[in-house]
This record gives sequence, C-alpha cells and structure tokens, in this order.
Amino acid sequence: MTAMAEFSLSDLEKIVGERAHSGDPDSWTAKLFARGIDKAAQKLGEEAVETVIAAVKGDKPALVSESADLIYHWLVVLGLSGVPLSDVLRELEGRTGRSGIAEKASRPKG
Amino acid sequence: MTAMAEFSLSDLEKIVGERAHSGDPDSWTAKLFARGIDKAAQKLGEEAVETVIAAVKGDKPALVSESADLIYHWLVVLGLSGVPLSDVLRELEGRTGRSGIAEKASRPKG
Amino acid sequence: MTAMAEFSLSDLEKIVGERAHSGDPDSWTAKLFARGIDKAAQKLGEEAVETVIAAVKGDKPALVSESADLIYHWLVVLGLSGVPLSDVLRELEGRTGRSGIAEKASRPKG
Amino acid sequence: MTAMAEFSLSDLEKIVGERAHSGDPDSWTAKLFARGIDKAAQKLGEEAVETVIAAVKGDKPALVSESADLIYHWLVVLGLSGVPLSDVLRELEGRTGRSGIAEKASRPKG
Repeated sequence: MTAMAEFSLSDLEKIVGERAHSGDPDSWTAKLFARGIDKAAQKLGEEAVETVIAAVKGDKPALVSESADLIYHWLVVLGLSGVPLSDVLRELEGRTGRSGIAEKASRPKG
Repeated sequence: MTAMAEFSLSDLEKIVGERAHSGDPDSWTAKLFARGIDKAAQKLGEEAVETVIAAVKGDKPALVSESADLIYHWLVVLGLSGVPLSDVLRELEGRTGRSGIAEKASRPKG
Repeated sequence: MTAMAEFSLSDLEKIVGERAHSGDPDSWTAKLFARGIDKAAQKLGEEAVETVIAAVKGDKPALVSESADLIYHWLVVLGLSGVPLSDVLRELEGRTGRSGIAEKASRPKG
Repeated sequence: MTAMAEFSLSDLEKIVGERAHSGDPDSWTAKLFARGIDKAAQKLGEEAVETVIAAVKGDKPALVSESADLIYHWLVVLGLSGVPLSDVLRELEGRTGRSGIAEKASRPKG
C-alpha cells in the first residue's frame, strides 16, 4: 500500500498470513497458528466478551483496544480455517442490497 | 466506490451510519440503533458464540455467514458508541509494527 | 423432596431429564433436546453473555433471571452430553480442598 | 453437612463467601473479589466459551472441568453482586411449575 492509503483489514490479513508460518518464536501469530483452531476460537470468544463489557460500560478507549484484539483473533480464525476475508466481505456486500442490510428479520433464528 | 473497488468495512460502516437514523421501519439497523447499546452488545456476543461454534466444527459456510453477522453487529456497536472504525484500524496498524502484531505476549492479561 | 427441602440443581436435573424425551410438543426442554448439542451449547453461550451484561450493569433482577436461564441451559447441555451433574459437583468439591478453591493460579492457562 | 450428604452449590457458595474477604494472599477467590465485578464477569464469560467448545466437541472430561470453572466463577459473580444463590434456585423452581420449565417459548426474545 502507498503511504496515503488507509490501513485495511486486507492488509492485516496479509500480515497475519505471512507471520502464521514464519516460525518466529517471538510471533504471537505463529504461536496461535501452532496451537490450532480450538484455541484460536476460544481467544476470539474471550475477546468478544471483553468487547461486550467495554461497550456496555461506555468505555471508548477499551472498546477500541478490545475491538482490535477481537478483529485480530477473528482473522487468525479465518486463516486457520482457510476462509479468505474476501468471502466475508462479499457476503456482507450481498446483504446490503436487501432491506435492512442483514436481512435478519426474515431469517429463522434459534 | 468504483465498480472495481472491493467492498470494504469502511463502505459498510457508511451504510450502517446512513440506515441507523433513517427511521425506516423495515431496517434492522434502525431497529438495533433504537434499542440501544446493551442490546447491540448482546447481539455481538451472541454472534461471536455462533462464530466460535462454526470455527470449532470446521463448517466453512457457517463461518462465513456467522462472521458476517459478527462484523455487522460489531459495526453497529461501534456506531452506537461513537467510535469510528478508523480508530480501530489505526490501533491494529500500530500493533503490526511491534513483534508478533498484537504484542500480546508481553501484556499483562487477566 | 419434602415440602421443607430447598429446591436444588439435582431436582432440576431430574425434571430436565424427564421432560427431555417426553415428546411433549409444548416442552421447551423437549425441543432443545431434539435440536441437539450445537444449538443447546449456543443457547448456553448466549445466556452467559446476558448474565455478564446484567452483572456488569449491576442489574440484580436481570442477574437472577439470566442466571436461571444460564443454569437451565447448562443442565440441558450436560444432559445432552451424558454428563451427570454429580460429576461436576464432585470436581468442585475436590477443588475446595486445595488452596484457593479452584487451584487456578497454578494451572497453565491459554 | 454430614459425611454422607452430597456436596451442593450451597456448600460452595458458603466456601466462596468465607474466602472472599479472607485476605489470604494464596486465595484465588480473594483475588477475584478484590478485582471487582467487571473482571469476575469477564472470567464467567470466558469459562462459558470454554464450556461451549467442550460441549460442541463432545469432550466429556473437558466439559466437566470447564463446567466447574463456569459454576465457580458464576458463584463469585453472584457473591460480588450481593445476589444469594437461593434467589436463583427459587426462580428456577418457579419456572418448573409452568409448561416447558423455562416458559421461554412464550417470552419475547431479542
């Protein structure tokens, strides 16, 4: 990316992918990939809990920080699962064409 | 955006913002904003649980779909909290400069 | 149980077990058992999120109500998994003998 | 309790209450109480995520162990919130009188 371009999730996805199998003993990303999907999914869930708490408390700095943790671990989960970020972005784009973005009102939910 | 540009979270953030206060009775986004941060945070947590389950089961189509739900509700939480997506992207970018992206190994954690 | 005995989780476990396979179309418990472990685990996770929010907000009536939902769905998960409540109680009892009840400080954690 | 009586959640609630303010530097319970409700609620949420994963994977030993963690931290949350376990048991008992135990089918849910 150029100096002017905003950092995007696609940039982060690329970095995560590079570090995943780098073998760098100091890389948290490499460690997470080595531990596998169950542990990565667990971290995603834990960071979601922290994001929820920050949001409910109205703590904006914590919400930024916990959100970053959440998104990072989510990208690790996608990477470990072999799901490209672009698949999720395409799904989101497809939903915006329907009423209410997420078309959830009409979906049967548990 | 042009026809060629990939759909991004920034695009989705813009759409969420427009629909948030649209008053459109068919808009799920407008409904979520009307119900407030506690309910939006709860939905974020619930979608995270579903994402975790899809990941652990290795169900890729479900992982795409639940991830879309998760990211969408996360943007609603950010919007309701007055936190721009760019704040989180900047936080993520800042972390990539440090070893292991998320520098988490060195952070005291609960 | 006699009229004087306090209602216990063991009583609830018994009731859940009876209704699980009752075939009663009005029984929420029977419905949950029919849908299987993934859906029951999802409900457990969702009720945990609601319990967390009630606790953080200091909303005691909501904490009682969401806790009841959490514990009920947890017993359904145990039942579907073939794990008797007494196994968990024995595990908890065993931990109380060690310092700090849960001996967690000394456990390696992710 | 006598030697024959089964260990119950009420027994554990009592032990948690005794250790909560014991000042014992080796007590995990005392540490959790000192850190306050937000951190305890976070731990409850994290243990719920681990319980969900164990259940979905059909890992019975992990389900027993994570369930014990979940219930223990839940009792800490109740204690910190000033909610007696008996309030939740009474709520659960009340629901068993109605169809389907949890009467949830008829409740409006988010």
